[in-house]
Amino acid sequence: MLIHASQPIGIFDSGIGGLTVARALKNMLPNESMIYFGDTAHLPYGDKSAAAIQAYSIKIGNILLQKNCKVILIACNAASAVACDLLKEYVGRRAKVFNVIDPVIGYIRERFARQSIGLIATKRTIQSGVYARKIKALQLGIQLKSLATPLLVPLIEERFVKEEISQEIVYDYLKKPQLGHIHALILGCTHYPVIKKQIESFYQPKIEVIDGAKLTAASLKAFLIDKQLVNPSEHAEDHFIVSDYTTDFEQATRLFFNKKVRLTQLPSWD
Amino acid sequence: MLIHASQPIGIFDSGIGGLTVARALKNMLPNESMIYFGDTAHLPYGDKSAAAIQAYSIKIGNILLQKNCKVILIACNAASAVACDLLKEYVGRRAKVFNVIDPVIGYIRERFARQSIGLIATKRTIQSGVYARKIKALQLGIQLKSLATPLLVPLIEERFVKEEISQEIVYDYLKKPQLGHIHALILGCTHYPVIKKQIESFYQPKIEVIDGAKLTAASLKAFLIDKQLVNPSEHAEDHFIVSDYTTDFEQATRLFFNKKVRLTQLPSWD
Repeated sequence: MLIHASQPIGIFDSGIGGLTVARALKNMLPNESMIYFGDTAHLPYGDKSAAAIQAYSIKIGNILLQKNCKVILIACNAASAVACDLLKEYVGRRAKVFNVIDPVIGYIRERFARQSIGLIATKRTIQSGVYARKIKALQLGIQLKSLATPLLVPLIEERFVKEEISQEIVYDYLKKPQLGHIHALILGCTHYPVIKKQIESFYQPKIEVIDGAKLTAASLKAFLIDKQLVNPSEHAEDHFIVSDYTTDFEQATRLFFNKKVRLTQLPSWD
Repeated sequence: MLIHASQPIGIFDSGIGGLTVARALKNMLPNESMIYFGDTAHLPYGDKSAAAIQAYSIKIGNILLQKNCKVILIACNAASAVACDLLKEYVGRRAKVFNVIDPVIGYIRERFARQSIGLIATKRTIQSGVYARKIKALQLGIQLKSLATPLLVPLIEERFVKEEISQEIVYDYLKKPQLGHIHALILGCTHYPVIKKQIESFYQPKIEVIDGAKLTAASLKAFLIDKQLVNPSEHAEDHFIVSDYTTDFEQATRLFFNKKVRLTQLPSWD
């Protein structure tokens, strides 16, 4: 690797979902500088084709490379599912590419052999079959039960404005037979940690609800320590870039970070 | 105008919402050839900034002009709100630009003087204030009561797959005090006619639920007759273009038109 500890960490998502990962990262690695790219011109990715998400990911990868990032973290399950291999190939040794799926797979491998695991995610992620393939490849007899829950993202995005969310829709999804008799549930979308407590409250007896944001941050921290790439400086700076400026996104970043963030628009990047 | 009767009608929206307008148009004007552009790479427009929607509208306008359209119909309230004046200026005499808001305003002018009218729409449309401005300009003492209902679009989009929709969310919106004591309700988003019956079922005693799709089609038909621009041919052809191909969009067009439609992707148009 030709990368150095003082370089920033690049993170991207279509919008605000990846902020759950960014927040987990800042909690675990407060000294790291972070460049967050929200592709708000194309949000949400969950509705877009695989080819489109791949093209957007390469364009954003270029921007984050130009900004000298040592790590590019794909903070979106749909993009992790369809664009991670491509982006790794494209980026090569210029930066380390992380996604939000592999840390979850690693966690499951250690704890859930021969058990049933539920997965909720957007349509694109479910259709990609990425979790099913990676879990099957573990050869641990883990049964995956998947359900696309496409209304949760808009419900959560509204919550930032309304401070309430429809219990009915969340429970309607969780009680579907496709998710019956599971020992744990993967939150397969970076929006979902926002309603983790509500999801946990559905399950009696309790089951483990697996939050990829924290696992990804922990995995990235372990990597940085292992490679001696933890930023030694105490002057971390965070930048937020959007492909379309909206007040909604700015409000969401403030709610996540409890302070005004530096938000710049990169116009006509496509 | 330098336009001819045999030229097609161009219609655009960010995705499937505008299909309600396209269907109303085909019912009223079956001999017209139609070119429908679904900007699925940027759907939904309701979350995007005004500047972004304006830029997309000009790009799509160019495509529809290249396809020789006699009319460009903006089949999206958000784009009608923020991009219609710009597109009219840009298109000039090359085509006639229609939007989905003015026909509704014309209908209200004739029937609802000194009454209270409700409006439900996406955030972008409500924030634009376009309905409030146009209704105030009528100087008929009409009171407009507006409510942004951003969850309805994703709910309706899911309905194409699930054939059910949450009554709770629809009624939660409609019973809000902002919409109290109204004599009619404007469906200010081209998705909403899909759940018109469900919305009507909320109101006891009944109120009129105003569907802009039909009014827009009627207004366009009157224009074509007046200007002798009705297509004399009986060989109408409809083309559907998308900026990002997804099976969801293709399924929606089939459901709307009860037949397989010709769907082409225009890649990298941005």
